[in-house]
Amino acid sequence: MNKREDLYEKIVELAVRRGFFWQSYEIYGGVAGLVDLGPLGAVLKRNIEEKWREWFIIRHQDFIVEIETPMITPRAVFEASGHLEHFTDPIVECRRCGRKFRADHLVEEKTGTTVEGLKPYELTKIIKENDIKCPICNGNLGEVREFSLLFQTTIGPYSENVGFLRPEAAQGMFTSFKRVYEAMRGKLPLGIGQIGRVGRNEISPRQGVIRLREFTIMEVEFFFDPEEPSCPLLPEVENDEIRLISGDMKKAKTKEPIVVTVREGLKKKLIVNEWLAYFLAIGQKFVKDLGIPLEKQVFEEKLPYERAHYSTQTFDQLVKVSRWGWIEVAGHSYRGRYDLSRHIAYSRKDLTVYRQFREPRLVRIEELEVDAEKLKEFYGENSAKILRAISESDKNILLKELESKGYLSIAGFRIPKELFKVKVVEREMKGKRFIPHVVEPSYGAERLLYATLEYAYTIKEGRVILKLPKDIAPISVAVLPLVNREPLVNLARKIYDNLKLTKLRAIYDSSGSIGRRYARSDEIGIPLALTVDYRSLENNTVTLRDRDTWRQVRIKIEEAYKKIPLYIKGELTFEQLGTPVS
Amino acid sequence: MNKREDLYEKIVELAVRRGFFWQSYEIYGGVAGLVDLGPLGAVLKRNIEEKWREWFIIRHQDFIVEIETPMITPRAVFEASGHLEHFTDPIVECRRCGRKFRADHLVEEKTGTTVEGLKPYELTKIIKENDIKCPICNGNLGEVREFSLLFQTTIGPYSENVGFLRPEAAQGMFTSFKRVYEAMRGKLPLGIGQIGRVGRNEISPRQGVIRLREFTIMEVEFFFDPEEPSCPLLPEVENDEIRLISGDMKKAKTKEPIVVTVREGLKKKLIVNEWLAYFLAIGQKFVKDLGIPLEKQVFEEKLPYERAHYSTQTFDQLVKVSRWGWIEVAGHSYRGRYDLSRHIAYSRKDLTVYRQFREPRLVRIEELEVDAEKLKEFYGENSAKILRAISESDKNILLKELESKGYLSIAGFRIPKELFKVKVVEREMKGKRFIPHVVEPSYGAERLLYATLEYAYTIKEGRVILKLPKDIAPISVAVLPLVNREPLVNLARKIYDNLKLTKLRAIYDSSGSIGRRYARSDEIGIPLALTVDYRSLENNTVTLRDRDTWRQVRIKIEEAYKKIPLYIKGELTFEQLGTPVS
Repeated sequence: MNKREDLYEKIVELAVRRGFFWQSYEIYGGVAGLVDLGPLGAVLKRNIEEKWREWFIIRHQDFIVEIETPMITPRAVFEASGHLEHFTDPIVECRRCGRKFRADHLVEEKTGTTVEGLKPYELTKIIKENDIKCPICNGNLGEVREFSLLFQTTIGPYSENVGFLRPEAAQGMFTSFKRVYEAMRGKLPLGIGQIGRVGRNEISPRQGVIRLREFTIMEVEFFFDPEEPSCPLLPEVENDEIRLISGDMKKAKTKEPIVVTVREGLKKKLIVNEWLAYFLAIGQKFVKDLGIPLEKQVFEEKLPYERAHYSTQTFDQLVKVSRWGWIEVAGHSYRGRYDLSRHIAYSRKDLTVYRQFREPRLVRIEELEVDAEKLKEFYGENSAKILRAISESDKNILLKELESKGYLSIAGFRIPKELFKVKVVEREMKGKRFIPHVVEPSYGAERLLYATLEYAYTIKEGRVILKLPKDIAPISVAVLPLVNREPLVNLARKIYDNLKLTKLRAIYDSSGSIGRRYARSDEIGIPLALTVDYRSLENNTVTLRDRDTWRQVRIKIEEAYKKIPLYIKGELTFEQLGTPVS
Repeated sequence: MNKREDLYEKIVELAVRRGFFWQSYEIYGGVAGLVDLGPLGAVLKRNIEEKWREWFIIRHQDFIVEIETPMITPRAVFEASGHLEHFTDPIVECRRCGRKFRADHLVEEKTGTTVEGLKPYELTKIIKENDIKCPICNGNLGEVREFSLLFQTTIGPYSENVGFLRPEAAQGMFTSFKRVYEAMRGKLPLGIGQIGRVGRNEISPRQGVIRLREFTIMEVEFFFDPEEPSCPLLPEVENDEIRLISGDMKKAKTKEPIVVTVREGLKKKLIVNEWLAYFLAIGQKFVKDLGIPLEKQVFEEKLPYERAHYSTQTFDQLVKVSRWGWIEVAGHSYRGRYDLSRHIAYSRKDLTVYRQFREPRLVRIEELEVDAEKLKEFYGENSAKILRAISESDKNILLKELESKGYLSIAGFRIPKELFKVKVVEREMKGKRFIPHVVEPSYGAERLLYATLEYAYTIKEGRVILKLPKDIAPISVAVLPLVNREPLVNLARKIYDNLKLTKLRAIYDSSGSIGRRYARSDEIGIPLALTVDYRSLENNTVTLRDRDTWRQVRIKIEEAYKKIPLYIKGELTFEQLGTPVS
């Protein structure tokens, strides 16, 4: 039995008791897939977000920015993005008891084979052929159908104004791309990041904090010119090794990843784009900073039928945990021009950007011309309105619509092909308009929080120590009077109050034996325990105890205020804090 | 004409152009009441949140903690909280064109009198009596009815599992109160804070960023023992003056606030509770830190019919803005025991806490006893299940139910009164269980963001300067080569890269004249412009320019890295940064 095997139960027990997380609305029986983050969990999550922000935003702040857009999204957006059509799971209902199940999960459990990418009718067939029954009442199952994972609502008092909760932050970046691009003065590459909540209406989530109906996504949509796809920052990471399972390896049932450098991965065409490769490298450093070693991380390529509808290449960033094995903590997708071109087609707004050529070039272009006179003849006084609508639309989109449909639906009218002329001209162009391509690293914060806790969880001499990275730990220092008596208490409280002024996260604890208080402090991962003893009264020193080694040093109180924040940031070693206590 | 009158348009223009905020989903025509925060707006909002966190959480971290709970909430919670019943607006539909309007707004516009608190049938009557018509098509209006402001959805695949988006964060704190209380080792007072998004399905919001359908709330639910209601921190603020309009003053149509100290406000019983008073004082300091002076802040008491259903006293914290006059940026409510007692009644879970008496007391208590034999006689093998359900429930609640209904609905059965005995006993008690009372300060982040921008907006010599407080400004320093030429550019980029390593928010700007770049930097409120000139190459110094005074000092490059962060935090004055440039 794997020593980590039962870890999940222990983490959950600790999480509930000490205040990391628990199921939401417990007093009403709880809701599957919803969790509350308690006092420690909320700070831990925020520290993880801050770490992500350092790696993905602040480091690149000249060309990656952060925005915030709403969860509530009008129907038009998900029509364009394809989520209305594709963001579904197959569901099957028991004809006897009426319970509903994930059809793919039932089939996988019964047949032992993976069925990702199968259509509902194919799943129905397998269920019938294998005589799969309701796992609860053994009744017959109905037809498999698609179930939308979008939480639906209504915006305002009109029931036709359907809205949804976003299942990813990405569409907020695509729909506001042009605004951000302009505010950032029209330069590419441009990354737009966002940390925010998303909703996914899972059918019956049963994996605690791992599969949630509402969670926090940390996402960058990185826009670049497809004709200039190289990443100037690549040299910083090109020799980093990554553990990778390619699509071909998966097809060949290889379970062990290969280890390649980022440069090799690109050269062997395992990774299709330099920016995608760059963010894999940044991403594994970020996750390592949470205390999850590189050898417990793998990038697994998704096979075509496993990929989301918008993606041309996707790597799942996987982390190994006790109960579920390898779980996905991030998806790194090459979304190409999919999203922007869909929004251009559906909104008819020009979301292209302009690139100046080094030298003017001769370019063949198709031009759309309206026969204004004929238009007037057929549409009378409405022709002005139609002309205006045409002039406000992207000509290329109109051209495509005209070609495919034979007419144009615009301004409430249907204009036949015959009223247009398409001229092919050769022009000297100084530049051209194009649709940027997009690479997307996207992390789930709560999963990372769980994995972080699991990797921090250690037993030493029969006691739990949560070895959280110092700068991630929710509380930085515990202030403890050696015994709960004056004048020690008075001095300890004074020190605690001063630490609070430095905005350090600190707790004061005076109840129970000092050993018990050390144990309580270790269990929630507080890196330092500051103890006020009788010598403190004589010479204004205190002891600092290291959570992981239980070693102690003695330090002047005044120095402690300055040095503790530096130690937490990793700028001082424990030994540099003071003189060892023997 | 007030000089601030047209400010709103100017702020919005600046906000859209430079990237503070804009309407969401513009490419699809936009959705009223939803805004995106752009690159500058997202950081500004986060800085406001961080400031709130400093004032409300970090300062009180020994007894106020922060949690995070979901937006998606099951129906049971809002049934208990009263929101299903009370969180509504009166709506009226035009019988001709079908458009829907806020009935109270229509009536107020036409009659000029306030109608808050009137019932739908009363509004219908006023509409008929005053012959109020549809403001769009002049058609007749129908009956006024209540419209729920809760965004409704379905959780999971069963349509009966109705859920809502929370309209306030508070219920997340009430439903998890017991968990947090236990994780915090069972002490009162205990504050539970949260920053998070909420949804309010406004009928037709038309005030841009001021009235949103989705926004960020910053809220503390502060739990205390009603028999120990005094606030030990009061001495810190008791002499602070607050500008206050009491309910009585409002009834007397007094428009001017009185100025009282916090202590006087309590003594004159204008404020019913010390903690409520304490948070008013903390709240006005917080808002002042955003650059909104005290004389532009007022606390206005809500009259009984204006208050939310849960409140016994509420003060709106108002801030004066150009277009809308006094707007509410916070509500400070005394929610008493309302929420917890409702959740106790609806969930039948014990959410009381225990207080030990100083000395044991004799207390008369009612005890509920079940006649287990009779229960067995009537309910057979189900009696064990019923006994267990009874033992898991709060006896006091069962007792009340039994008294009011004459029977008990439990475990799916109806148990008549006759199977119970109620014994009144006198017991020596060491303590008692009670329901904590709650005081709630609750802020809207986006409104504060707007007000912050408005108070920062200044014109100097015909140019816009956004005088944001230094520690709130989204970008701290602009790095500018005097001219866009080597070797100045090289040095400037190096300085920029080093500043990024200190995690300072910085921009690099080299395009256009230095004057134009200063102007661009002032317009988005960057406190410092660091300029690399030819002297920089000679002696490793740069100039720093103060946004507000345009004064300049010269400083060693190495010192700039250390001193700029201190200046931004307010620990150094501008003069302390270097030697004045004449």
